[in-house]
Amino acid sequence: MSESPVIAIDAMGGDFGPNVTIPAAANALERQSDLKFHIFGNEAQVRPALDQYDALKKVTEFTHTDIAVSGTDKPSRALRNGKGSSMRLAIEAVKEGKAHGIVSAGNTGALMVMSKLILKSLPGISRPAIASVMPTQTGKTVMLDLGANLECDAEILTQFAVLGAVYARVVQGVMTPTVGLLNVGTEEMKGHDEIRAAADVLSKVEFPGKYHGFIEGNDITKGTVDVVVTDGFTGNVALKTAEGVAKLTKHFLTDAFKSSPLAMIGYMLSKGAMQKMKDKVDPRKYNGGMFLGINGICVKSHGSSDVLATENAILVAADLIRNDFNNQVAAEIERLMEQESFVEALGV
Amino acid sequence: MSESPVIAIDAMGGDFGPNVTIPAAANALERQSDLKFHIFGNEAQVRPALDQYDALKKVTEFTHTDIAVSGTDKPSRALRNGKGSSMRLAIEAVKEGKAHGIVSAGNTGALMVMSKLILKSLPGISRPAIASVMPTQTGKTVMLDLGANLECDAEILTQFAVLGAVYARVVQGVMTPTVGLLNVGTEEMKGHDEIRAAADVLSKVEFPGKYHGFIEGNDITKGTVDVVVTDGFTGNVALKTAEGVAKLTKHFLTDAFKSSPLAMIGYMLSKGAMQKMKDKVDPRKYNGGMFLGINGICVKSHGSSDVLATENAILVAADLIRNDFNNQVAAEIERLMEQESFVEALGV
Repeated sequence: MSESPVIAIDAMGGDFGPNVTIPAAANALERQSDLKFHIFGNEAQVRPALDQYDALKKVTEFTHTDIAVSGTDKPSRALRNGKGSSMRLAIEAVKEGKAHGIVSAGNTGALMVMSKLILKSLPGISRPAIASVMPTQTGKTVMLDLGANLECDAEILTQFAVLGAVYARVVQGVMTPTVGLLNVGTEEMKGHDEIRAAADVLSKVEFPGKYHGFIEGNDITKGTVDVVVTDGFTGNVALKTAEGVAKLTKHFLTDAFKSSPLAMIGYMLSKGAMQKMKDKVDPRKYNGGMFLGINGICVKSHGSSDVLATENAILVAADLIRNDFNNQVAAEIERLMEQESFVEALGV
Repeated sequence: MSESPVIAIDAMGGDFGPNVTIPAAANALERQSDLKFHIFGNEAQVRPALDQYDALKKVTEFTHTDIAVSGTDKPSRALRNGKGSSMRLAIEAVKEGKAHGIVSAGNTGALMVMSKLILKSLPGISRPAIASVMPTQTGKTVMLDLGANLECDAEILTQFAVLGAVYARVVQGVMTPTVGLLNVGTEEMKGHDEIRAAADVLSKVEFPGKYHGFIEGNDITKGTVDVVVTDGFTGNVALKTAEGVAKLTKHFLTDAFKSSPLAMIGYMLSKGAMQKMKDKVDPRKYNGGMFLGINGICVKSHGSSDVLATENAILVAADLIRNDFNNQVAAEIERLMEQESFVEALGV
């Protein structure tokens, strides 16, 4: 798209609200000078923060609201009480065409339910998914679903494959992304009915990627495929398990470096290299859970995000907008549903 | 138990067969001098290895067979063709009371199916589970199921909780082990029906542990609970994802130390400390998938295990035997099934 991306920001979301969201927007603007913002939040908190960034102020439309969705509300409650909230107004801005996408660090469940209600799913997508990019030994992989849909049948898993493949192609520039289904083994007979049925469909249909087959948990970080497809229960547990192991390693590494004077000197000497490694796997650089399949770009920033992490989530949204992600998905889903092999394989 | 543990060894299992299993048994014997062995395998391969260890020879009964279960066979095929195989003979030795437990690095599916068929499940256990110990920030946790049962209802998950809790108590010495159900969030309404029903049962019944509640993927390595209970699909993916992240970190760490002459010197100085850390998380020290719930001790060693890893699997079996694990489980399961709250909560 040639237009400048306009991003609606739910300034009140997350643990730190405008103190993080506003500097993050300012930093994103420094990185991409054509960005525009529509910021929603409580004026008393947003204005002082915004007043510190002249460049940001110039490209920002601000709307005051004193309603904010709580991070602990059930989605149903947030939906009932969240009318006029910063989250809802930001989503409505996308619906009304005033913004191209929304970034929020608020309540994940509420954001998903509100987005689906207001923006709806893309045509042909039964269930939008949460996707995120993860570092691997060979580069990056995109994994979905990370928790939006706990149980997924073959049709839904196939749609996830399309969403992931289009993302890898148009945003990451991988022409023919490989797609793997996360399973307990790589042999054909492994896994439950739904995943075997999905494998059957994916091996028959044409979609903007190449079906690799089943993969196992260790394949995620090995970089075996460009797109990891799984149900939201498994994906959520796998992602958080990975985060936990990364923290455990950091914990053990710190202990090791502190264990003797020699090791501490060793650390001082290798500090630069260690910092580079830390930068490479810095979770803040992978922040931004993309709600793929919603008819409007929607990116969830982690609740505890700092400025760098939030900036990254904003740039993830800008990337999806610039690459016209949703129209590309819609075209691919239409192409999928026209295929006889898809209809036959699913027996619909 | 006061008797010496007698361990049946499937010498032909795993990638390296007797070249690894025999030295591993010899090393285990050096660590625990009262161990006895019953070794099954091809004489032409086992004898030359065994002849190198006099002490081991003295406490070993050897049985020749030229049949071995292939690592790639489907369990059903292994069952049909595996009569007289080293794996099956070793299991039968346990059935006949000639050995207290079996260790095999062979085909996991075949070992589980054969063990269930020949040894049966413990009374009251519907489905034996694969369990393993994992390192955490605060010590160790035991996790099950790791792949034996892809779909699990509340009753099965409750039995896993008992199996895990008895293990943590009798083998790891934790008097009141905490048990968590692996889920996508810690709030009560999270997850699918089965896991919520299991939470309901576990919060009502008396069992040899304390129900902690739902835990998330990152809680596994945080050490939030002593026992992590999950279905075999999720557990398998989580375990392998954890292994993958550990490998990724090692890969990045090696890269970092090699990235500059200064970092290399830093590595030389901190080498001792790094080695200690590596030892701490050495996967070989966590080798030994315990088939809990089988009426006979059965430990699966990883197919690619080396001598140290196999030795560890043998010691895991010895630990279970010495602590009379199965009788303790049987007593706890009986106590569970006598509880009205258990029967009521399950609606059976």
